[in-house]
Amino acid sequence: MSKVAIVMGSTSDLPVMQDALDVLEGFGIPVELDIVSAHRTPEKLFDFSKNAHTRGISVIIAGAGGAAHLPGMVASLSPLPVIGVPVKSRNSIDGWDSVLSILQMPGGVPVATVALDGAKNAGILAAQILASQNEALLEKIIAFKEGLKEKVIEGAKSVAKK
Amino acid sequence: MSKVAIVMGSTSDLPVMQDALDVLEGFGIPVELDIVSAHRTPEKLFDFSKNAHTRGISVIIAGAGGAAHLPGMVASLSPLPVIGVPVKSRNSIDGWDSVLSILQMPGGVPVATVALDGAKNAGILAAQILASQNEALLEKIIAFKEGLKEKVIEGAKSVAKK
Amino acid sequence: MSKVAIVMGSTSDLPVMQDALDVLEGFGIPVELDIVSAHRTPEKLFDFSKNAHTRGISVIIAGAGGAAHLPGMVASLSPLPVIGVPVKSRNSIDGWDSVLSILQMPGGVPVATVALDGAKNAGILAAQILASQNEALLEKIIAFKEGLKEKVIEGAKSVAKK
Amino acid sequence: MSKVAIVMGSTSDLPVMQDALDVLEGFGIPVELDIVSAHRTPEKLFDFSKNAHTRGISVIIAGAGGAAHLPGMVASLSPLPVIGVPVKSRNSIDGWDSVLSILQMPGGVPVATVALDGAKNAGILAAQILASQNEALLEKIIAFKEGLKEKVIEGAKSVAKK
Amino acid sequence: MSKVAIVMGSTSDLPVMQDALDVLEGFGIPVELDIVSAHRTPEKLFDFSKNAHTRGISVIIAGAGGAAHLPGMVASLSPLPVIGVPVKSRNSIDGWDSVLSILQMPGGVPVATVALDGAKNAGILAAQILASQNEALLEKIIAFKEGLKEKVIEGAKSVAKK
Amino acid sequence: MSKVAIVMGSTSDLPVMQDALDVLEGFGIPVELDIVSAHRTPEKLFDFSKNAHTRGISVIIAGAGGAAHLPGMVASLSPLPVIGVPVKSRNSIDGWDSVLSILQMPGGVPVATVALDGAKNAGILAAQILASQNEALLEKIIAFKEGLKEKVIEGAKSVAKK
Amino acid sequence: MSKVAIVMGSTSDLPVMQDALDVLEGFGIPVELDIVSAHRTPEKLFDFSKNAHTRGISVIIAGAGGAAHLPGMVASLSPLPVIGVPVKSRNSIDGWDSVLSILQMPGGVPVATVALDGAKNAGILAAQILASQNEALLEKIIAFKEGLKEKVIEGAKSVAKK
Amino acid sequence: MSKVAIVMGSTSDLPVMQDALDVLEGFGIPVELDIVSAHRTPEKLFDFSKNAHTRGISVIIAGAGGAAHLPGMVASLSPLPVIGVPVKSRNSIDGWDSVLSILQMPGGVPVATVALDGAKNAGILAAQILASQNEALLEKIIAFKEGLKEKVIEGAKSVAKK
Repeated sequence: MSKVAIVMGSTSDLPVMQDALDVLEGFGIPVELDIVSAHRTPEKLFDFSKNAHTRGISVIIAGAGGAAHLPGMVASLSPLPVIGVPVKSRNSIDGWDSVLSILQMPGGVPVATVALDGAKNAGILAAQILASQNEALLEKIIAFKEGLKEKVIEGAKSVAKK
Repeated sequence: MSKVAIVMGSTSDLPVMQDALDVLEGFGIPVELDIVSAHRTPEKLFDFSKNAHTRGISVIIAGAGGAAHLPGMVASLSPLPVIGVPVKSRNSIDGWDSVLSILQMPGGVPVATVALDGAKNAGILAAQILASQNEALLEKIIAFKEGLKEKVIEGAKSVAKK
Repeated sequence: MSKVAIVMGSTSDLPVMQDALDVLEGFGIPVELDIVSAHRTPEKLFDFSKNAHTRGISVIIAGAGGAAHLPGMVASLSPLPVIGVPVKSRNSIDGWDSVLSILQMPGGVPVATVALDGAKNAGILAAQILASQNEALLEKIIAFKEGLKEKVIEGAKSVAKK
Repeated sequence: MSKVAIVMGSTSDLPVMQDALDVLEGFGIPVELDIVSAHRTPEKLFDFSKNAHTRGISVIIAGAGGAAHLPGMVASLSPLPVIGVPVKSRNSIDGWDSVLSILQMPGGVPVATVALDGAKNAGILAAQILASQNEALLEKIIAFKEGLKEKVIEGAKSVAKK
Repeated sequence: MSKVAIVMGSTSDLPVMQDALDVLEGFGIPVELDIVSAHRTPEKLFDFSKNAHTRGISVIIAGAGGAAHLPGMVASLSPLPVIGVPVKSRNSIDGWDSVLSILQMPGGVPVATVALDGAKNAGILAAQILASQNEALLEKIIAFKEGLKEKVIEGAKSVAKK
Repeated sequence: MSKVAIVMGSTSDLPVMQDALDVLEGFGIPVELDIVSAHRTPEKLFDFSKNAHTRGISVIIAGAGGAAHLPGMVASLSPLPVIGVPVKSRNSIDGWDSVLSILQMPGGVPVATVALDGAKNAGILAAQILASQNEALLEKIIAFKEGLKEKVIEGAKSVAKK
Repeated sequence: MSKVAIVMGSTSDLPVMQDALDVLEGFGIPVELDIVSAHRTPEKLFDFSKNAHTRGISVIIAGAGGAAHLPGMVASLSPLPVIGVPVKSRNSIDGWDSVLSILQMPGGVPVATVALDGAKNAGILAAQILASQNEALLEKIIAFKEGLKEKVIEGAKSVAKK
Repeated sequence: MSKVAIVMGSTSDLPVMQDALDVLEGFGIPVELDIVSAHRTPEKLFDFSKNAHTRGISVIIAGAGGAAHLPGMVASLSPLPVIGVPVKSRNSIDGWDSVLSILQMPGGVPVATVALDGAKNAGILAAQILASQNEALLEKIIAFKEGLKEKVIEGAKSVAKK
């Protein structure tokens, strides 16, 4: 089965990015996790991004904070779909810096951006990308969405009042 | 081959969203184009979103402006990957309303958001999603990125100065 | 007497939304409280919104955070006046996402938006809407406003200094 | 039938506020239109707001730009539901000043805020408020919403492409 | 000697506004302190503002948070110079609402706005206004500014390093 | 009679700052107008600010755009009340830079900030400061405010509709 | 003499970046101008950045718009001081995206950021960096600053009014 | 060897600015540290800035918060390259005030701005400026960047997972 790679700029992003890992493992999708800093390990960024698609990886999730260049630079170097997770790092200006550095990519080089600290959704989106051409996985996505619904309905029972 | 659906909230979004259509046609990917308004045709929104994956569609691109609910509501109803294009509509507050209404989806329901008015990138991203499991299309993506490079190198020749 | 429905996207919105319930009960207005998630229970959203006006409900208060689509989608599906409460949820970008997702509705589908976490005012507004055609309730609103005044005047006594 | 009053801070707000008048006249609802400046005619503001509910007015729409105090001050003085329209005036900081001055009212004094320059929606909301307790008008609202739908479906026909 | 009036919308603004009182008392300027809510005690707002200049008051300091209408409404009703203090209240959107509601007054009705929670500076500014035509007080202002300087020079001594 | 000085950072600020001059001349207040750039003529800034109060000037109005340091630096050097006018210059980020550079002065050094491009209000405020201790001028201010009212009432006549 | 390199992401940035070239030529400093796109020519970015310091270049000016990664990536790969110019490109969200993508670099990899579209200042800053260890050039900088002053004084003469 | 001066507006900025000192000492660069307040010690600001380049100082780092005028005023008075550090002070509006007051300098007077609270990067940038014409120091910078890389690679080892 296709693999998803999760990369992040720093070990300090791990508590946020862990959610993506958990979701993908929940779907039984193989994951590769690594630290790749656009600013501190640019050579590793190149090697990783240039070769990911030749190593059985189908989707890349990249998380970074502040002037977050990792997702965009991976997208520049890889033909694969890249999902960007803006991380609200220390010294961030309320997260706006990471959001805009990842979202506002120029024409030609998209990054599929999710919400601030939205690593869980990055994992689900990666699963949906794989599922879009994999019937069995699509069924799991449909079941996952049913699960969301049920949890809300449980909640509704506890608060409903007429 | 898998199809991509492009939907938008209003015909006034078409000048922006046309870029997605052009890119996908350039890659030879079949496209279905429709107007679906979350706020004015909610029943059509339901029908479209619930059934897209059963009609050979693999990726959905949804564009909308202002309090842009279309991408998120499609994502709520379909198991497919949904790409959201924030459109800077008339009366928008500088585009912030569409960007945040599409990007900041709650955990469980991702929308792959691209830049403000970034329909071209939405088209490329849809192609990359299909290509992630289609060798021939992946080659086209790689060639497309080479084309971007050559255009820059042309530009560089015209301005270079030592 | 007409009823007011209070719906919210998640049980985590309840601590904020409780204020609306308290105000309405203070005015002796019957209230129906439920969890309806635009993104996780879209079918329930449809059922609730389509039928509210046939069940004796006159005003709907809807609260949600982040990319808050609940108030706008209820307004899309119901002919009743809908009051939207932007909730400052976890991971919100300082509340801007909920405010803009609720406020900036397109022409044709209004949401009566109140302040961030302003559920108390949503309750008062719902009461004012009912009171606008109910003499007895209007008297209660006038008395309520007198009460606000008296509290300020109490406060003034404690700090006044010449 | 109950009347709606439309007030605005300056004649320069009229091109925006006209939309509210047009919508209400379309629904056959009687309207009273006036210029009331919170900052330049505070006595008129008091007279108007204190007495509106005694003159057959059921809903007040108030539009203003910049540091827009008119809607909030009317709400402070009248027991009626007040709908605020933030107007993007000359010298406004992109409309943020009017939006926040109207939306962020303190607990106790709600203003039902609509989108920037959203006078059309203010008119519809006023009609919905009256309709919430007027069966015939509610039918008109339902028909109005059907009309929105049909216009989208027309648009969809012109662009649909498979 | 001329008096300065300090008014604020709520007792919850007192911890911030106290700084203005302290500064003015330090300069030996008589102060009148009161709670006047634009939204909850509009009649008191009128009485206070209309008459302040007839009671020996020369400058008014008004502090408020959120959709802060107090300073602007006082300025609308009084011919005296009005200093506005934006207070960062609970539920404020990072203070932007109070800042813009006070600063962005329309042409004709100025409010002398100071920094967010800047009541100390409001007190100094009021003293400067009185001093601008009072030689003895002007000397105190000059001495006060010398004091600021000396404190910095003390600090510099403790950190200087060559 | 006391004089008001109007200074600005560049001749390009003159079209905005002219409004302050016009208002003050309308009140018959003597005005001194000069170009003083904090960044390009710092020595002139020092001379001007240090001596203004010794030359019969009672209030200083300072306008500047972008990283607008002129008002704050004048306030640092002069004991007089300083009114700051944020000018929306070319390359400004929507005016936010000038507004925040002028408004957010540290404790000890106030600048009385008016709205973006609000030079007219700066002129009125300067007049109010002089009038706060000048009965005859105070009467003129009261008459000026009556004039504002009458203009609104004229406008109201032209649009009123019952 | 040391050279300055000016690079930009696209020929569309040239009208803005030309100002840096003009300033440097005015100081007689040799300049190398090139187009280097972080996203479309990442290999050229690597070659350029890795080798600039070995080819007689002492300072690099990099301009880019939107999610502007060029300045930060050059800074990641080169030991030289890098000056970043945020360019307000088409589809930019008012310039905030370029400003934050360039300014908010993580600890370890600075970019010397200048104002939005501030290429002229980037040129002056590059000259100051060279001048900081070049007496003759420092004299030119001092003379340049005198020139700024004289232009203001000229302007002052034309508007001064007592 | 050339010296770097670090100045800041207040001792309360020291905890942030200490990082610049530490970095420079790590590179063996002599540093001069002082408190210079643009607003409270303007004469010291003049003396310091006018003479720094005559005392063996080659680069100035200036940190300040709120309406941060220190970096720009130093740049106005000194021919040396000035690095500005926006400090997120108490009462700051999320840091935007310091960022914009330092970054948005007018044409002619650049300040090399680093990230909010980015004093570490200011230190590195000052070292790079000195190194741009000092071979031995340039080697240290190259080694420093290697050190950054190694730390990331260590981190990567601890989290890598296949």
